[in-house]
Amino acid sequence: MAEFFTMDHQSHQIFGDDKVKMVINTLPPNGGSGTFSYSKNSYFQKRSSSVEESKIEEEIQKKLDVKKLASASNMIIRVADFGCATGPNTFVNAHKVLEAMKHKHKSQCPNTETNPEFHVFFNDLPSNDFNTLFTSLPQDRNFFACGVPGSFYNRLFPQSSIHFAYSTYALHFLSKSPEVVQELNDPAWNKGRIHYTSASEEVVDAYATQFARDAGNFLDARAVELVPGGMLVIVMQGVPNGMPYSHIINGMLFDCMGSILMELSKEGLFDESEVDSFNFPYYAPSPEEMRKVIEKNGRFSIERMELTDPAPWLKSMEQVIPEWILHVRAAMEPIFITQFGNQATHQMFQRLTKQLLDKRHLLQTKYRDKIQLFLVLKKN
Amino acid sequence: MAEFFTMDHQSHQIFGDDKVKMVINTLPPNGGSGTFSYSKNSYFQKRSSSVEESKIEEEIQKKLDVKKLASASNMIIRVADFGCATGPNTFVNAHKVLEAMKHKHKSQCPNTETNPEFHVFFNDLPSNDFNTLFTSLPQDRNFFACGVPGSFYNRLFPQSSIHFAYSTYALHFLSKSPEVVQELNDPAWNKGRIHYTSASEEVVDAYATQFARDAGNFLDARAVELVPGGMLVIVMQGVPNGMPYSHIINGMLFDCMGSILMELSKEGLFDESEVDSFNFPYYAPSPEEMRKVIEKNGRFSIERMELTDPAPWLKSMEQVIPEWILHVRAAMEPIFITQFGNQATHQMFQRLTKQLLDKRHLLQTKYRDKIQLFLVLKKN
Repeated sequence: MAEFFTMDHQSHQIFGDDKVKMVINTLPPNGGSGTFSYSKNSYFQKRSSSVEESKIEEEIQKKLDVKKLASASNMIIRVADFGCATGPNTFVNAHKVLEAMKHKHKSQCPNTETNPEFHVFFNDLPSNDFNTLFTSLPQDRNFFACGVPGSFYNRLFPQSSIHFAYSTYALHFLSKSPEVVQELNDPAWNKGRIHYTSASEEVVDAYATQFARDAGNFLDARAVELVPGGMLVIVMQGVPNGMPYSHIINGMLFDCMGSILMELSKEGLFDESEVDSFNFPYYAPSPEEMRKVIEKNGRFSIERMELTDPAPWLKSMEQVIPEWILHVRAAMEPIFITQFGNQATHQMFQRLTKQLLDKRHLLQTKYRDKIQLFLVLKKN
Repeated sequence: MAEFFTMDHQSHQIFGDDKVKMVINTLPPNGGSGTFSYSKNSYFQKRSSSVEESKIEEEIQKKLDVKKLASASNMIIRVADFGCATGPNTFVNAHKVLEAMKHKHKSQCPNTETNPEFHVFFNDLPSNDFNTLFTSLPQDRNFFACGVPGSFYNRLFPQSSIHFAYSTYALHFLSKSPEVVQELNDPAWNKGRIHYTSASEEVVDAYATQFARDAGNFLDARAVELVPGGMLVIVMQGVPNGMPYSHIINGMLFDCMGSILMELSKEGLFDESEVDSFNFPYYAPSPEEMRKVIEKNGRFSIERMELTDPAPWLKSMEQVIPEWILHVRAAMEPIFITQFGNQATHQMFQRLTKQLLDKRHLLQTKYRDKIQLFLVLKKN
């Protein structure tokens, strides 16, 4: 449940059709290296990501023809991380992927002295703190590094130029919240909640539709950018087929945040309409939904897709609740502040920790759920 | 004389051989978009750079085989700016270069519908404010953009991957000040000055040697990175063959800064040794010196090399002195603060404007000098 908080979002008012619509856009996590920074509070994500490490190595070894890709590309292998945030996790991921590719190349060409050079592209939104990313790049890296500012729901690279792409804890962040859930009197109006967890079917559908559109755009862009035979690995939040999100530990978090914000509005810290107009742009798909998106795109083969336990290393949930909420705060604080102000946001996180500690026995029954979606695709 | 201040530097103490050496490393200019930011105070550079625009277009049209380069590279043209700072000048330069290349491609392939895609790499030191650069990227750009953190005196790209490289107002910034000029009792010890302007022959030689080494490293790296037939354009500070730097308007600036800092030390704001240990890592070569470096490298042909007046648009020097010093301050302030503190730095810039206004008649006689070195190289 920890790797949940890779990006934040921001509210924007869009004026048109004589009415004001609130759209909650995705934003990158907290920059810098301070107490609440993502760079200091993302080690849960690191550990959860490492669960998939050996599988990625295995897929590269079995299915990525590094020799062929390199020789068709002037011995340059281009690797991209979509949703890199500020580090350090992205550097760990890049290192592991490169090591696996070097290993594969060596096994394919045991006697060659001509090894590929690696060009690694770190992508995130333009408002991501690339300064922190760049100044913390490993000094002893054996690749050439670039930062790529832009939404990964759009094209970011020239056609057929990327050999290996990965995205870790990023693709569950929608490009924006679905507009209808903020529309007063629409059947999908999500009054009094900040997410589709525990919401009406219309709200869930609106989120699912937004996810299908966003993930479709992601795959369309990557299908153009990846070379034939290139590999795309995705690690993100997921949900077992047919399971309501309120059964998931992250769903409980959203419900809790929503009810605390309603409490605070009743206490007069802000108007209740602020909660109504705030919807977190996050969606965890089931493998079935993801398969549909991939099949609709039609340019990738599914090499591997599975749900895994993101925290097999965790011995008990209740002991890490404050730390978990620190991770949540590191990632989400800016958007809450934008919408609700400093004071209310601070209070919300304070109460969140308390309330989740009160629910620790329930959380304890859920933290072993397989809610991490792992996906390996190969470009046709 | 305006385009002088593209990068700053910072003092570092290096411990070794049982003594402390001060090395002044180059640093990027002021970040952000505030009063003294480079992004707000670099329009002199923009205008001076535009002096070379039509020449660059001409060279691309005459000598760059865009059709051949694109078709050998899967229709992807890769362009790099070495020393991009925070913008906006780098975007203007990129736009002009890309337009010229598109024009050339169209003239080579009038009937094709397959146009190259452009991948543009913006390079500067890792401490450059890439956040400002990325958030100010033109929305309507027709290229894919990357930031590349690292010193351009090292390798930054895979071999044979760049088709067109340029560096504008950056290459006169040495990687560091020559160490000997800070060494007490060395014949090249540069006591009481902050630059080689008006200094002893030993000091000038030490700087010249450092420049030859740095520019050599720059060309060595670019020679590996550029494809055969690729083009490298450099716009930087220069000096006519054999002319002492004290005759140049920028030399007068350094002399003035040095003497003000000596004044301030005598007034007790800091110890005189702070001036002795501070040497600005900047060198303006003559065409003759540059030719030697290029010939030593041996992997480029010189297509064009000339000195130009960087400010033909300037009607009078004296009216722009305060603005000029604002540009200087935007670019240099951080390093002066590092060495001399806030208060002294503020005073230095205040007095600098005054003193240069007092010398306006002398400056007026010099601002038409041809001190901008323009260079077009082609990779063999």
